Amino acid sequence: MPEFLHLIPPSEALDRLFKALPESFQAEGEQVFTEDALGRVLAASVSAPHPLPPFARSTVDGYSLHAVDTYGATPSLPSYLKLIGEVHMGTSTEIAVGSGQAALVHTGGMIPEGADGVVKIEDTQAVGEDEIEVLKPVAGGENILTVGEDVRAGDIVIDAGEWLRPQEIGGLMALGVTEVLVARRPRVGIISTGDEVVPPDAEVSPGQIRDINSYALSALISRSGGEPIRRGIIPDRYVELLQTAQHAHSQDDIVVITAGSSVSIRDITGDVISALGEPGVLVHGVSIKPGKPTILAVADRVPMIGLPGNPVSALVVAGLFVVPLIRRWLGLKDPDIPPTIHAHLSINVVSETGREDYLPVRLVPTEEGFSAEPIFGRSNLIFTLVRADGLVRIPSEATGLSEGTEVRVILF
Amino acid sequence: MPEFLHLIPPSEALDRLFKALPESFQAEGEQVFTEDALGRVLAASVSAPHPLPPFARSTVDGYSLHAVDTYGATPSLPSYLKLIGEVHMGTSTEIAVGSGQAALVHTGGMIPEGADGVVKIEDTQAVGEDEIEVLKPVAGGENILTVGEDVRAGDIVIDAGEWLRPQEIGGLMALGVTEVLVARRPRVGIISTGDEVVPPDAEVSPGQIRDINSYALSALISRSGGEPIRRGIIPDRYVELLQTAQHAHSQDDIVVITAGSSVSIRDITGDVISALGEPGVLVHGVSIKPGKPTILAVADRVPMIGLPGNPVSALVVAGLFVVPLIRRWLGLKDPDIPPTIHAHLSINVVSETGREDYLPVRLVPTEEGFSAEPIFGRSNLIFTLVRADGLVRIPSEATGLSEGTEVRVILF
Repeated sequence: MPEFLHLIPPSEALDRLFKALPESFQAEGEQVFTEDALGRVLAASVSAPHPLPPFARSTVDGYSLHAVDTYGATPSLPSYLKLIGEVHMGTSTEIAVGSGQAALVHTGGMIPEGADGVVKIEDTQAVGEDEIEVLKPVAGGENILTVGEDVRAGDIVIDAGEWLRPQEIGGLMALGVTEVLVARRPRVGIISTGDEVVPPDAEVSPGQIRDINSYALSALISRSGGEPIRRGIIPDRYVELLQTAQHAHSQDDIVVITAGSSVSIRDITGDVISALGEPGVLVHGVSIKPGKPTILAVADRVPMIGLPGNPVSALVVAGLFVVPLIRRWLGLKDPDIPPTIHAHLSINVVSETGREDYLPVRLVPTEEGFSAEPIFGRSNLIFTLVRADGLVRIPSEATGLSEGTEVRVILF
Repeated sequence: MPEFLHLIPPSEALDRLFKALPESFQAEGEQVFTEDALGRVLAASVSAPHPLPPFARSTVDGYSLHAVDTYGATPSLPSYLKLIGEVHMGTSTEIAVGSGQAALVHTGGMIPEGADGVVKIEDTQAVGEDEIEVLKPVAGGENILTVGEDVRAGDIVIDAGEWLRPQEIGGLMALGVTEVLVARRPRVGIISTGDEVVPPDAEVSPGQIRDINSYALSALISRSGGEPIRRGIIPDRYVELLQTAQHAHSQDDIVVITAGSSVSIRDITGDVISALGEPGVLVHGVSIKPGKPTILAVADRVPMIGLPGNPVSALVVAGLFVVPLIRRWLGLKDPDIPPTIHAHLSINVVSETGREDYLPVRLVPTEEGFSAEPIFGRSNLIFTLVRADGLVRIPSEATGLSEGTEVRVILF
């Protein structure tokens, strides 16, 4: 397996994987209620069935009027207007405001016919029952939201490929769009391998460990917009792994195999993937720490990722390769901007050139912001990540980072 | 209502609210399966029922041996060791490694009795069937994970008040903890008021608008760990609002009322809250834009928040006051570190002193990173937030920010 010796930089590795994906690797749409669509990705652009606001609205509590009637108004020389009525909220109004007239309107209320400006209540004074003094001039259009000022009829308001956040849910509801077509979540099959791996609810005998990866990866996949499907724990044997991988390959949109850790099983994973179709293994070995023995493959149109067995590597590598695959499937338009916090490194950190390092750190508040403290201990222990708030990426060309360097901590 | 004129800075406002919360304002625990606990908050600390790893494990593929047997070994003067067997994965081993002996062990495999170091396979050479040459010295403990190196039995591994992320799920599974006690999500009642507001699936007549706030706030509350309960759209009348607010007050842990926008209803919201119990309204008016007419209250042990009616203000203010209440209820230990992106402001922005401004911006990738482009248009239009990637906070003491200033964009 010569690829094992030739480590590929992670960006190039992802590029190879993406180039080998078939055009069919994309979500079909499914109809869901808008109120259940938080966090989903729009599969078809939505355009506005009508303008928003659908009628001209006041942005203040005040009097709608002809702006020209107020030119030059001051507290000592106010404009006098005849109060002809009140626009009630939630109803169309019959009122028409003529020259020299004004009608009371509330914030969000409909601007009556004829009016082209609104003066705030606090800039007026009542004179008896049916007259007001306007104490300052109002410009044409002042304090009025015009029809379509937010969106015009026919405008594309949310593009296909956008995440739906609370404001998109609200915006869709404003337009009466109570159902939307969203990208179906990709089914991500997860196969855990290893003779030593037992289910979490099992009593462990000496030599056995419980399955961490199936569950940690399921959680990561759910959070990233995929639908995790645990395909079980498979012993380190070619025939069993092939059977399970074939099944997952036929059912799932993405297949992830977390490698058992013995020498032999690493070859088995590659062999099984190759047996499932062309082009097979594209990358075997990525120049990152942790995560070197990663396999990226496409077999008969289905991307398959072989993750290192240790749980820290598995999670870090899944973040680098499985999450982007899910985003690609969903058709997410925006570049992936992982949430980060800027912090200052608490100590010197050494790194090898030619390898990207992902360093787990804890954030400690300081007077200037945050200090990023590397988590000590072996990198392949799951509680290293439990103690960490995020990862600092040390670029391939760096030999390390000095104490005090400002770093971007990628939050989990 | 004199409070209306006296605007309180947001941090002081939150402080007043928190100080008025009763001790009973905290989640009880509920038992859930660990595999379903992603994003939940632990209600009771979890300690390790056994050490992890539970047995000494090899971190490499190699030969377990007595380290002392390899001192001074070099390729030209190797140590010769007798190969006495292989440790099979997933089983306890009967092998005991004596002086001058070695046993094959795989990554993650159990270290056999007697061995105190492991040499990597690539630093050895086979000599016939049952002898190996060790080409470099091995230190005591080298390539061995000792019992309890990740966690010791009885260690608190995750504290009460921590979020469960994928790595916590994995870590709990590693310890066989398949159920956990998590904080019950707070029920957050949402009441939308306004004579002009109709449900999203209604046809709108002139003068009416669809309910945005109930749905946008529901989504924000879900995402923040609360359970939104929509209590309906209530007309701008004291009796109806009081009835609905009483019901929500008796059922929910937090009550949010989004104000109708007429003058009168703002008073109604405050009056209704005051009628529900002591201490009543604590803050009426916060020095922020958008969001000035915010009400913060505690009535008979239940926090109640009156949000401005316009959807942008409602969402921004809910982020500043409702989300922290949910976090407080859940007992979240960590300070709230909102995910941010550093960006450079694309234009000069003017702001009033004495008021915190939250400016919606779009992120545009540039050669140096990101440019933050303020979204133009009125601040109270919902699609302003749809077009935005995040908010820039302009501090109270600033009169504005210059083009090119580095700002932290708080991502939605």
